[in-house]
This record gives sequence, C-alpha cells and structure tokens, in this order.
Amino acid sequence: MKTDREAPVGVFDSGVGGLTVAREIMRNLPSEKIVYFGDTARVPYGNKSRETVIRYSHQICRFLQEQQVKAIVVACNTASAFALDAIRDDFDIPIIGVIEAGAKVAAARTRNKRVGIIGTVGTVGSGIHAEYLRKLDPEITVFGKACPLFVPLVEEGWLHDPVTTEVAARYLRELQDKKVDTLILGCTHYPLLRSTIREIMGEDVCLVNPAYETALELGRLLAEKGLSSTGAQQKEFPYRFFVSDLADEFKEFANSILPYDVEMTKKIDIEKY
Amino acid sequence: MKTDREAPVGVFDSGVGGLTVAREIMRNLPSEKIVYFGDTARVPYGNKSRETVIRYSHQICRFLQEQQVKAIVVACNTASAFALDAIRDDFDIPIIGVIEAGAKVAAARTRNKRVGIIGTVGTVGSGIHAEYLRKLDPEITVFGKACPLFVPLVEEGWLHDPVTTEVAARYLRELQDKKVDTLILGCTHYPLLRSTIREIMGEDVCLVNPAYETALELGRLLAEKGLSSTGAQQKEFPYRFFVSDLADEFKEFANSILPYDVEMTKKIDIEKY
Repeated sequence: MKTDREAPVGVFDSGVGGLTVAREIMRNLPSEKIVYFGDTARVPYGNKSRETVIRYSHQICRFLQEQQVKAIVVACNTASAFALDAIRDDFDIPIIGVIEAGAKVAAARTRNKRVGIIGTVGTVGSGIHAEYLRKLDPEITVFGKACPLFVPLVEEGWLHDPVTTEVAARYLRELQDKKVDTLILGCTHYPLLRSTIREIMGEDVCLVNPAYETALELGRLLAEKGLSSTGAQQKEFPYRFFVSDLADEFKEFANSILPYDVEMTKKIDIEKY
Repeated sequence: MKTDREAPVGVFDSGVGGLTVAREIMRNLPSEKIVYFGDTARVPYGNKSRETVIRYSHQICRFLQEQQVKAIVVACNTASAFALDAIRDDFDIPIIGVIEAGAKVAAARTRNKRVGIIGTVGTVGSGIHAEYLRKLDPEITVFGKACPLFVPLVEEGWLHDPVTTEVAARYLRELQDKKVDTLILGCTHYPLLRSTIREIMGEDVCLVNPAYETALELGRLLAEKGLSSTGAQQKEFPYRFFVSDLADEFKEFANSILPYDVEMTKKIDIEKY
C-alpha cells in the first residue's frame, strides 16, 4: 500500500510538553497536518522503567497507526531514549525522536567537544545522548544532569522566579564546572526556562532546542521519502488533539503555548491499544 | 462467606507515598498483615481527572480482592477524595480513606474553627475536606492550598533546604494570613516536610498527620467488625509489596522510610484488572 503524502504526521508525548514540538512543526512545516496524542492519564514517563515506557509507546503507536499517520514524531525525550528502536522494529513508517535531532546539532556546534545534557532522571540515566554523540564524533565527552524540579516549576508557572533561578543555578553548577560549550535542553518543558538557563550558563554556551531541530529533521525526512504534503487538500482545521485523560491542564497549557484555542481535544482509552 | 480475621489488610497508593501510611499501621497494629500496592506505572494521581482516578482505583481494588484482603485502606489522598464512594459501592469489605480520618481529628482539635488543608491540585480542588469537616461541625471554615512542588522536593531529598523553606513559606503565607489553628498535611509525602512546615506555621498551629490517624481508625474499625488479627498465625514475613512498575525509586524510598529492606517487591500488570 502506498502511503498517502497528504496523511497527517503523528506526534506523541507523555503529556502536554510535546506540544512545544508540535508548535515547531506547525511553524516550520505549515502544510503538514498533525495528530497529537498526550498520555495525560499516565504522565510523567521520566520516573518510569524502560519496559513500561516501551509498552506505553507501543500502545500509542498502534493508536496513531489507526489514525493513518504517514510518520511518527516521538516528542517525549524519555520515550525517545527508551522506546525508539523497539517501535521502529514494529511499525513500517518513518519514526523520528527528539534525541537524535538534538544530538546531531550539538555535535555540529560544539567546539571544545564538551556537551551537556539536562533532562529527566530517565532520559539522563539512559545515557542515550552520549551514545548518539559518540557515534557522530568519538572525541565528544557528554556530561548529564537530571533536573527533576524543572517540570513542576514550569507547570507551576514560576518561569521567571528567584526560586527557579536558585534551583537552576544549583542544577547547572556541575555543568559549568565541566566547561561545556553546548547544552541540550533534553526535556520538552525546558525551552520554556530558556532565559533563566541562558542567564546562568552565559552567552557563550550554545543552547540546543531539540523541538526546533526535530521539526527541521522531519521536513528533510518527509522530502527524502517523497512524503511532504503539498498542502493542496487542506479544507478543514489541520490539527487534531487526543489525550488519555481530560484534565483541564492540557487545554490550559495548550492554549498558553499555541496560537489558537485547543477546544476539540478528544479523550481515548489508550490501555485498549 | 465469613471474612477471615487473619487475612491481610490491603493498602494502596498512586506510588511510594502511601508507605508512610503502611508504616503507621505496622507501628500501631503490629499483628496485622499488609498487602501494599503502589501504582508506580501511573503515578502521580494528583493532576488527573476524577473519572480516571476512579477507574484506576477500581482496578486496584479488584487486584486486592484477588489477594483476599479483609479491608482496604486508600492511602492516596487524591483517590480518597475522588474514588472512595465509588469503590465502597462496589466492594463488600470495610474501606477507609486518609481524608475522613484526618478530618475527624482536625474537627476535634481546632479551637478557632479555622482549618487549613494542603495537598495536590486534585485533593485541594475536590473540596472534600471542607465537605467532611462541615458535616462534623458546620461552624468550621476550611482554607485549602495546593502545593505541587512539595512532592518533587521530597523526592529530590531536599527535606531541609533553603529552597524548600522558601517554597513552603510562599505556599503557606496564605494560610497564615487566614489564621488557621489546625493544618491537615493532606498528601502522603508531606509528613516528611513536617519540621519545615512546623517552623513556618509556628508551635501554636496543630499539624494533623492523616497517616497516623488512619492507622488508629483502622484499628477501631477492625475491632468493631470482629476482624482484628490475633497475630497467632504469623509464621512468615507479614508484608507483601506490589507495584505496577519496577522502578528502583520504589525500593529506595521504601528502604529509606521502613525499618527493613523491601526486597521482594513484585510487579503486576494493573491494566488487566
């Protein structure tokens, strides 16, 4: 069966955070339709085991397949770290994750070959960034630091706050001491703390936002496979949102970062997949 | 069928936090066996909808029923707030929650009839404490404050830390302004921040720990129903632990608060129930 180039792209995350990736796709590939799934009933993934995250990712990809997506973007860093190979083995469409995209750009940008990565306990502990980066350039040394308080601070809305600055300063001190010249923001929420992180790390450190890099990578991949949408068939609103739990938070967060109201969010029973 | 008084008590929580309740049962009712379930694959419940929390609680009670428990303690505040009535309708054994037990003691202790309650967004937003307290004493006014950063701060181990003190001071200011004389620690993790909360609220405010009160309440309930264990049949280790995800965190947290090693934690597939 030939894949339909006008089919939507599937994007999934453990919750709302992946919307920062969806937003970059909307901005940079405006012809593409998107089916977004946020696993809000089981969020977060960052403190769960590899096995559980793989099982959840499989369920979600089966759901997205049913939605006839032409490609899947794993917008969740933890799922990208743990489950990307497993789902690539089982699904016959292009699948990309946020980690590869971020690693590629970091490898290209670093001059002193010292790259920092911040993220959840799961992402950082997986060592997956180091693996990718060393494949790209064996001379690179990777320094990881888990920042478990960043997501709740973002969700509390304390984006520009002395508490957040103090927490960030404490988390990042180690990476400053290691003299990294490039820092990957390895969690979907972290770009929202960009200015605080910038202030602490200084202007000379390159901050890599994998959400943006993933959108560009998706564009290249679709073009390469002859799957880029022509945008010709767009009659209706091109974005659909699904969640596993209809908490108000999803809509609130979505409305705070997307340029229009996300009203038609639909709940599905993901455990059935 | 007559319930076996030597059967274990089922205790469940969204994750590790309910172990603070299990610990109080171990201390205060040493003859009772316990089957503990922590829903570590779907933790936390605090930011999920009522409907989802009810569905999860039903699945867990079906699992505990299969373990032939004689009573169930809902150690999770969010599940107590959202799901207690629903599961009482469907299961024919005594079921108690942490919220009722805490509310009873708070109603007995307050002198100025101004009671504060701190917990997750879900627990505080449910207004369930106010409901219970007003039933017990219509003159009581309840002031709720959600403290979403407390759980990640505890899990980060920052129990005695200037950041935690600053966050707590900010969260609690509102309740101080309201001049509450009694404060319910409405989340299983919060007793671990007791000294920080005590410092901010001062010696004159009574801090109610629902974990302790629930253990006492369970003892009274079992005695009343003729279900108290005689302790005579105890040959093997009386506590069994089950989780939905085998992350190391469970064991680490368990070992940090229980007086022995929790080695035999078993993983089950809770979505099957």
